[in-house]
Amino acid sequence: MMKMKTFLLTFLCLVATAVEAQQNLSFSQNGQPVSPEVNVDHSVTFRLMAPEAQKIQVTGDFLPEGQRVADMLKDDKGVWTMTTEPLKPELYMYNLLVDGVKVNDPQNVYAIRDVNNLFSIFLVSGGQADLYCVNNVAHGNISKVWYDSPTANMKRRCTVYTPAGYETSGRKYPVFYLLHGMGGDENAWSELGRAAQILDNLIAQGKAEPMIVVMPNGNMVQEAAPGDASDGLVVPTMKLPKTMEGSFETAFPDVVKFVEKTYRVKKDKAHRAIAGLSMGGFHSLFVSINHPDDFGYIGLFSAATDRLQQETSDYLNVYEDRNGKIDRLFSKHPKLFWIGIGKTDFLYKNNASLRSYLDSKHYPYEYVETEGGHTWRNWRVYLSMFVQKLFK
Amino acid sequence: MMKMKTFLLTFLCLVATAVEAQQNLSFSQNGQPVSPEVNVDHSVTFRLMAPEAQKIQVTGDFLPEGQRVADMLKDDKGVWTMTTEPLKPELYMYNLLVDGVKVNDPQNVYAIRDVNNLFSIFLVSGGQADLYCVNNVAHGNISKVWYDSPTANMKRRCTVYTPAGYETSGRKYPVFYLLHGMGGDENAWSELGRAAQILDNLIAQGKAEPMIVVMPNGNMVQEAAPGDASDGLVVPTMKLPKTMEGSFETAFPDVVKFVEKTYRVKKDKAHRAIAGLSMGGFHSLFVSINHPDDFGYIGLFSAATDRLQQETSDYLNVYEDRNGKIDRLFSKHPKLFWIGIGKTDFLYKNNASLRSYLDSKHYPYEYVETEGGHTWRNWRVYLSMFVQKLFK
Repeated sequence: MMKMKTFLLTFLCLVATAVEAQQNLSFSQNGQPVSPEVNVDHSVTFRLMAPEAQKIQVTGDFLPEGQRVADMLKDDKGVWTMTTEPLKPELYMYNLLVDGVKVNDPQNVYAIRDVNNLFSIFLVSGGQADLYCVNNVAHGNISKVWYDSPTANMKRRCTVYTPAGYETSGRKYPVFYLLHGMGGDENAWSELGRAAQILDNLIAQGKAEPMIVVMPNGNMVQEAAPGDASDGLVVPTMKLPKTMEGSFETAFPDVVKFVEKTYRVKKDKAHRAIAGLSMGGFHSLFVSINHPDDFGYIGLFSAATDRLQQETSDYLNVYEDRNGKIDRLFSKHPKLFWIGIGKTDFLYKNNASLRSYLDSKHYPYEYVETEGGHTWRNWRVYLSMFVQKLFK
Repeated sequence: MMKMKTFLLTFLCLVATAVEAQQNLSFSQNGQPVSPEVNVDHSVTFRLMAPEAQKIQVTGDFLPEGQRVADMLKDDKGVWTMTTEPLKPELYMYNLLVDGVKVNDPQNVYAIRDVNNLFSIFLVSGGQADLYCVNNVAHGNISKVWYDSPTANMKRRCTVYTPAGYETSGRKYPVFYLLHGMGGDENAWSELGRAAQILDNLIAQGKAEPMIVVMPNGNMVQEAAPGDASDGLVVPTMKLPKTMEGSFETAFPDVVKFVEKTYRVKKDKAHRAIAGLSMGGFHSLFVSINHPDDFGYIGLFSAATDRLQQETSDYLNVYEDRNGKIDRLFSKHPKLFWIGIGKTDFLYKNNASLRSYLDSKHYPYEYVETEGGHTWRNWRVYLSMFVQKLFK
């Protein structure tokens, strides 16, 4: 018995050592202040223990418009603190500036990459933002799936959401192709876009039909998201070639072919939707008008709506005769042509011009205009609205 | 034509603005030094632009044993630099200390959470570490899958690797259950463990059989990894209840049942393997000896091999009569009983004691002893060795 007690004590000490060892670097969260903390009134407190630092600030999309940073204040124990005003429900992104160096909040392990920056995130729940939470509902699955693209002569990866019950229902499902913007990749919609949570919640509430959501990679020079491809842990960049020169649209049927071969899906126009943000909206427009018999539902979220650059490309026919192709699309009566844009979006006029053309022809479409600009916060809202209109 | 030129110019300016807008926070990688940079001789250079900082250090598992931090040096432009000695091929983890605050390298978007810390990572390729790279080979898919655990009365999530070709081959595959350690979750093996890369590469080289790898969550109070469950963006912790008190082992058949219902798999002992690291090795031992007809291959990676704490629990029978259950297991001739441990692992003696028992009974097992201790770097090696021995 004595022996057992000694052994037990030794074991517990060893476990404590193991915690250190497993982490490789000795850093204990004990005694570290919690950050961020969402308070009862929906204000948020950031804290950082940094007795040696001279200046700490916080920067993030929760700050009032026009304010770039907020100073944190140091107490006599070296803990810096800043509390925001009460915030609206939203998924927010932020960084700390430690003596001028922009870093993640070291107390917050939840970080998401957007293009070439890593942001700390937090969620103020309630209202629309409840759709972004993992709630106690049936969950769909997210898969990272490699497929063959003979047109691009590459193996490429896409992210696939299958709704709760897919594995066992035996049913066939409609498919929604959801495209990212410039600088994004096949992870964008499932991470900052909260696509799985939005779909899970709206399906559970009976507001969206169970559907498969396919999120391909829109950058034809990439096999997969940065870090997940054979070029290694590269520095991600906005400025990739082969994004808006027609090769994505030309290779797009490879994705559809793969999906319809691999998943239990309905394979007609009434059960195919396509939408995307920014560049992905541009891709959605040109994929759908070049294949007017294929997509019953089309969504443009803060989209570029015109070919605006005159690069040389092997695929320029994709963009030729846009209005003629739009005419053909509408002659076949798509169930939904949906446009969403923010009032301060740099593509507002570009969208207004497209709407003028649609109006001049009396083509039916739905239009949503929101506050704000070219931001994830708008794209999550557009996704939430759009999916409620599909396949009904 | 003039109009087009003006429009083009406007569009390009607007795109530049959009880049800022999409990121929400204005931070440009232009002019920022690259960090980390793996040099030709496999030394690694860290750089950080921080003219206002007083002291910057780097800490990481590439430092020589016993060295906790290395100082970075500031040049007259405010760029801090540190170059390591040439490093062995490995996946390394590190942080920067900016005026005493431990942060991620802000120039490196590749970060992985281990328990409650977020580490920047880099990879020095070559040798063993080539198995950790995404190489130009056929890739399997990674899925985050929810399943029903009636025993736990919960929906729970596991990570599933399906090998390249699974979707189209029509074949049935063997299944390898791969378990994480204390403080880990169902993401641990696919992230720091590089399980998908290791399997892809060894299968492509013909050294491992195509197999499905199922990575469940070993913490019975969790539905899924922190941040992916309905308790929200919680602070992760090592100290969870219901980890080594028998409830995981008791509910384990729910995972097997789900997998065998959902995937095209072979359903016999000859085509089922189980292994895990630390707590996951403990789970593997007790799952397999309590079900001696179910697993042909058993792997203990830096495992706890004994019930050492006398908690009250509803499931203590799981741990009763360990040696009698081991006898029963070996009477049924498992194809492989594999033990791997590092020389400085705090569980070394614990494993030596198990080996003594196995030796005393002349039970056949394979034993690998490596340098080092209770670290991911050993666990990746053990995984690479173990999977080459399965299902042959």
